[in-house]
Amino acid sequence: MASQEQHQEQNPCVIIDGKAIAQTIRSEIAEEVKQLSEKFGKVPGLAVVIVGCRKDSQSYVNMKRKACAEVGIKSFDVDLPENVSEADLIHQVHDLNAHPDVHGILVQLPLPSHINEEKVLSEISIEKDVDGFHPLNIGKLSMKGREPLFEPCTPKGCLELLARSGVTVKGKRAVVVGRSNIVGLPVSMLLLKADATVTIVHSRSTNIESIIREADIIIAAAGQAYMIKGDWIKPGAAVIDVGTNAVDDPSRKSGYRLVGDVDFKEACKVAGCVTPVPGGVGPMTVAMLLKNTLDGAKRKIVQ
Amino acid sequence: MASQEQHQEQNPCVIIDGKAIAQTIRSEIAEEVKQLSEKFGKVPGLAVVIVGCRKDSQSYVNMKRKACAEVGIKSFDVDLPENVSEADLIHQVHDLNAHPDVHGILVQLPLPSHINEEKVLSEISIEKDVDGFHPLNIGKLSMKGREPLFEPCTPKGCLELLARSGVTVKGKRAVVVGRSNIVGLPVSMLLLKADATVTIVHSRSTNIESIIREADIIIAAAGQAYMIKGDWIKPGAAVIDVGTNAVDDPSRKSGYRLVGDVDFKEACKVAGCVTPVPGGVGPMTVAMLLKNTLDGAKRKIVQ
Repeated sequence: MASQEQHQEQNPCVIIDGKAIAQTIRSEIAEEVKQLSEKFGKVPGLAVVIVGCRKDSQSYVNMKRKACAEVGIKSFDVDLPENVSEADLIHQVHDLNAHPDVHGILVQLPLPSHINEEKVLSEISIEKDVDGFHPLNIGKLSMKGREPLFEPCTPKGCLELLARSGVTVKGKRAVVVGRSNIVGLPVSMLLLKADATVTIVHSRSTNIESIIREADIIIAAAGQAYMIKGDWIKPGAAVIDVGTNAVDDPSRKSGYRLVGDVDFKEACKVAGCVTPVPGGVGPMTVAMLLKNTLDGAKRKIVQ
Repeated sequence: MASQEQHQEQNPCVIIDGKAIAQTIRSEIAEEVKQLSEKFGKVPGLAVVIVGCRKDSQSYVNMKRKACAEVGIKSFDVDLPENVSEADLIHQVHDLNAHPDVHGILVQLPLPSHINEEKVLSEISIEKDVDGFHPLNIGKLSMKGREPLFEPCTPKGCLELLARSGVTVKGKRAVVVGRSNIVGLPVSMLLLKADATVTIVHSRSTNIESIIREADIIIAAAGQAYMIKGDWIKPGAAVIDVGTNAVDDPSRKSGYRLVGDVDFKEACKVAGCVTPVPGGVGPMTVAMLLKNTLDGAKRKIVQ
């Protein structure tokens, strides 16, 4: 480990402050919203749809609605009962598609089991798909020379964190751990578009350690607490930890705390920069949702 | 090179005969077409649209039309003059979209420079997009748990060659060289869906040699003659060469011959199996086009 120690003495690890970066972005958005309002007398609108009363979903939705209010985005609240029919939910989505003041539509997942999520999401107008999950958006995201209307929020937040931390992506080796539709796959496509050499590892991969050890940039999105150890990390690498895993913690009132996919303490001894959990990628996801809503609104308002 | 020699003595390299495999698949397709015709009195139909009189395009189109005839697929020939307007071409595409006996539409590329290719291709009905290039198809191809209506022909052919050569993909390290919309990107997505650990390298990548050297499966789609040398290949690796590059050859009447992205002679000394150029991936592209047309027809005819 001598080389790691030498590395650390010369180049201490930077803790990427996602909360502060997200706050900067939110201030930039608030300023743009203000200008839109002054010039055109209109503000961006985001519809946040929630079905049922899952505690976690409600807390996410409240956070998003509060974030909208803070930057001047009008939030359209649609709260539907647990037993709403799929047809009624789709009817609500169609109404929001047609509403001229709504520029983004977000349906909080998961939906109750009697509703087909894929079907509902595919009813959201592609021009209001601020989550960027529509297959047409994912297709354009993946294709060279094509651009989606919206990039998915968490992947976009990862690249924004790298950019605002001064990490160059072009020509670098990036390893993405996980291949989910909401993080792993789209973040791989964004890194590829930014000219990184991208490797995607997942639950069926072998020799994951040695592959990760070659990465200049690690995006951890496996959903496994402490999976990535300090000695899996190349000295000086940039580590973006998307994992949010609950682990038991009797010292807390709640009985648990949230940790990432990376062993943060160990990572700090060897990485060039690393995001903490919480306070890393999390706040960026909401900031990017606001940014997507603003961008969608600008396409409609500024002609 | 002792280990390579030892490897070769024990496991001689298999030359993957794409022409023979494609012929087997075409026989299977002909049999299915015959059954469709007997049971339902209908056969699959493929519209092949060509604009202008580029020699290479004409030769590809003739090959495709001939291949249709051989397996009993009805080919609808649309030959348009070089100076056809974009609007007229799109009008033709719409007619074919509406034609009940046409199950697949192929517009031969490149189109003349006064026509926007992207615009024309996006007018092809998703249900007849046998090339599989529509962004909605690419999006579904990329996403976990989603399936495109059609997989792009050349990438599909690469995986079929691996499968019919007994190469397991699951858990293997695959390196794709090139990230084009028609080969590199979609073949990466197919390999990922088949549970390979996938790395995509391209013109901005560094240390390409050492990355390729770790691959159990190499898909070469860079369009650079002889780019991949024998000593870049891990002993026993499966090598699929998608490149078709013209190099000078004064000994031929034409003055040139076609070679792949891989140094074939050197590859034969170290790989476990390798496709030749020509006679490897090429014939599979046409076979997969026929297969896609058959599948599109079955969705319409067999209810």
